[in-house]
Amino acid sequence: MTTLPEGFTASGVTAGLKPSGARDLGLLVSDRAAVCAGTFTTNRVKAAPVVLTRRHVRRGSARAIVVNAGNANACTGEQGTADARAMAKASGVALGGLSEREILVASTGIIGVPMPMALVREGIVEAAAARTRGGLDDLAAAIMTTDTRPKIASEVLPGGARIVGIAKGAGMIAPEMATMLAFLATDAPVPHGILAPALHASIGGSFNAISVDGCMSTNDCVLMLANGAAGGDDLTAETASAFTEALGSVTQSLARQIVEDGEGATKVVSILVEGARSETEARRAASVIADSVLVRCAIGGGDPNWGRIMAALGTAPIPFDPAVVDVFLAGEMLCERGGPGPGNPEAAAKRMQQREVEIRVDLHRGGAHTTILTNDLTAEYVRINTEYTT
Amino acid sequence: MTTLPEGFTASGVTAGLKPSGARDLGLLVSDRAAVCAGTFTTNRVKAAPVVLTRRHVRRGSARAIVVNAGNANACTGEQGTADARAMAKASGVALGGLSEREILVASTGIIGVPMPMALVREGIVEAAAARTRGGLDDLAAAIMTTDTRPKIASEVLPGGARIVGIAKGAGMIAPEMATMLAFLATDAPVPHGILAPALHASIGGSFNAISVDGCMSTNDCVLMLANGAAGGDDLTAETASAFTEALGSVTQSLARQIVEDGEGATKVVSILVEGARSETEARRAASVIADSVLVRCAIGGGDPNWGRIMAALGTAPIPFDPAVVDVFLAGEMLCERGGPGPGNPEAAAKRMQQREVEIRVDLHRGGAHTTILTNDLTAEYVRINTEYTT
Repeated sequence: MTTLPEGFTASGVTAGLKPSGARDLGLLVSDRAAVCAGTFTTNRVKAAPVVLTRRHVRRGSARAIVVNAGNANACTGEQGTADARAMAKASGVALGGLSEREILVASTGIIGVPMPMALVREGIVEAAAARTRGGLDDLAAAIMTTDTRPKIASEVLPGGARIVGIAKGAGMIAPEMATMLAFLATDAPVPHGILAPALHASIGGSFNAISVDGCMSTNDCVLMLANGAAGGDDLTAETASAFTEALGSVTQSLARQIVEDGEGATKVVSILVEGARSETEARRAASVIADSVLVRCAIGGGDPNWGRIMAALGTAPIPFDPAVVDVFLAGEMLCERGGPGPGNPEAAAKRMQQREVEIRVDLHRGGAHTTILTNDLTAEYVRINTEYTT
Repeated sequence: MTTLPEGFTASGVTAGLKPSGARDLGLLVSDRAAVCAGTFTTNRVKAAPVVLTRRHVRRGSARAIVVNAGNANACTGEQGTADARAMAKASGVALGGLSEREILVASTGIIGVPMPMALVREGIVEAAAARTRGGLDDLAAAIMTTDTRPKIASEVLPGGARIVGIAKGAGMIAPEMATMLAFLATDAPVPHGILAPALHASIGGSFNAISVDGCMSTNDCVLMLANGAAGGDDLTAETASAFTEALGSVTQSLARQIVEDGEGATKVVSILVEGARSETEARRAASVIADSVLVRCAIGGGDPNWGRIMAALGTAPIPFDPAVVDVFLAGEMLCERGGPGPGNPEAAAKRMQQREVEIRVDLHRGGAHTTILTNDLTAEYVRINTEYTT
């Protein structure tokens, strides 16, 4: 059991939105006003709760997050907008009279189906009553869709304040903005001027550096609450380094857990592109490799087919000379200067049976590099996504 | 059996490049100098035969195409360049002393493996001797990789001249430039000034309007020879309309055959985007839908999950208002103005069991439209691409 930081409670209950009868609605609540920050999907088609919560986050302060799985409340028109707002309002009432603007709303699940608001309202009342300091595990379970396990991470800061985080992922994960749901809470005294940039910075190296299927969701958001309940002076630019470092660890752990639990995945693939002129360039190169279904099928089959890596790389919107590129697969240099390299394909194939596979590409253009995590594409992924709504 | 136009012969033989022992090398030869045109992959990583043939096509005239399957001669370094050239040279010799510059070379198959040139040389000699007017079927078989059937189309022009074409596809098919191999031959008297623009124009509505997996190959090319053997006056801008129309029919037929035979595919999906400001805008919208693995999984499962279409659409690099978009799936309006529409999902699901599925999206922004063909993503696709080289 993961205990929440000081001043936070959480719960996860069964409202009846998931046909399975599993937990599907929850609350994360601070007992006092908390500084808040968030990042949201860059998809032009945004779910109603994303539009609402973005507005609430701009206030810089919030008291609670209400979240449900089983229904995304996306592409639900004006009714969806009203329903998202009603979820905030009902949560505020259930929590003893908070304003709806103090509540952040998130949803995940099927798109284009109206929210069953009667179930949601009952669930909110139940969730408000069920809150405990140990309720994070239940909340982490309540946000799962095709995830096979909850994703939780925590860090202790010097002085005893803590950061905890939970996330859900599994599918529709692409490396553009926050690509899933993640909620973070800390009792450290973090002012907004520190919290928002630290959260955004941490996302570049975590949730924005993973790809499961290159599909961007309508509902992605990362929300963080900092209530200062641990006491002490507000963090400043000078004293925030331990906090930003711990936040980086928590978000990276959650991002990695998302990749490890990608739909149908059997392997975690790290794609390191080095020798780029800039980090942006390295990221563009790594992204086209991560999003190539042919590369990801080859990894799934333990097939050291480096030609597919080169073919994918050639579609990246960056200038580079294929004739100088080196590709290492599972530690073997299978491609040297654009042609077959001295590495041993059999050794690579053998090592590719392991759970972790590394692709390393050297563009030989400069000194910048980046790493993106993805996983293999399997028949099981297709099965899951063929049968999701029916 | 498809008879070639006047003055053309073809063959397809077993050189031993495919482990299966199937035909894997062939020739398409004109008995006189033919006007030629071609389009090539836009992948920055280009196979050696693509680089060579692009240069030869620039001369505007050629005598023959030599092609092999089983090895792409891509990412093979300087040896690959020498091997592509040696294929042209050996073909010229086997065809009675043609210059290597008169030979166009194409290869398809595994990337990054040196060409087994001893087998290739023997195969070229055999293919040169095996040529007949009826050899197109053997050639169409020889260029297949994971294709399950050969792809052939032909049209007769007023006056009796003909256009025939063959293609291979199956995987690594993306809507950017010629996305597979296709070879076209006509005995119509088509000067270069007519042939090249007509070929390029026909590709926009055929090979560039299909997507199998969004993966662009290193070896794609479309080549056309026009030898004028049917006689008559050279076509002019005024007299070419029957020719360009017939060429459009042949390339569209071949493109459709490629989609129908996509790796593991059970359905052909046409994605019509209308109400766009421009055709480019319509194409961008259609492309992100065609390349969404989640959409293509849903089609495979006969799942009327229109939310995935909206989620994919939201990632298109075009400005549009999701709140006015309509989506029709299998003839049912499942999304109206961005929310659930009046259509019947059960009726859509039932119709999606058929071999042809239509997605229609109206952006309500303007009068331009386009259609892209793709197919469903199945576990069989993953199986094929997991086991390809091993």
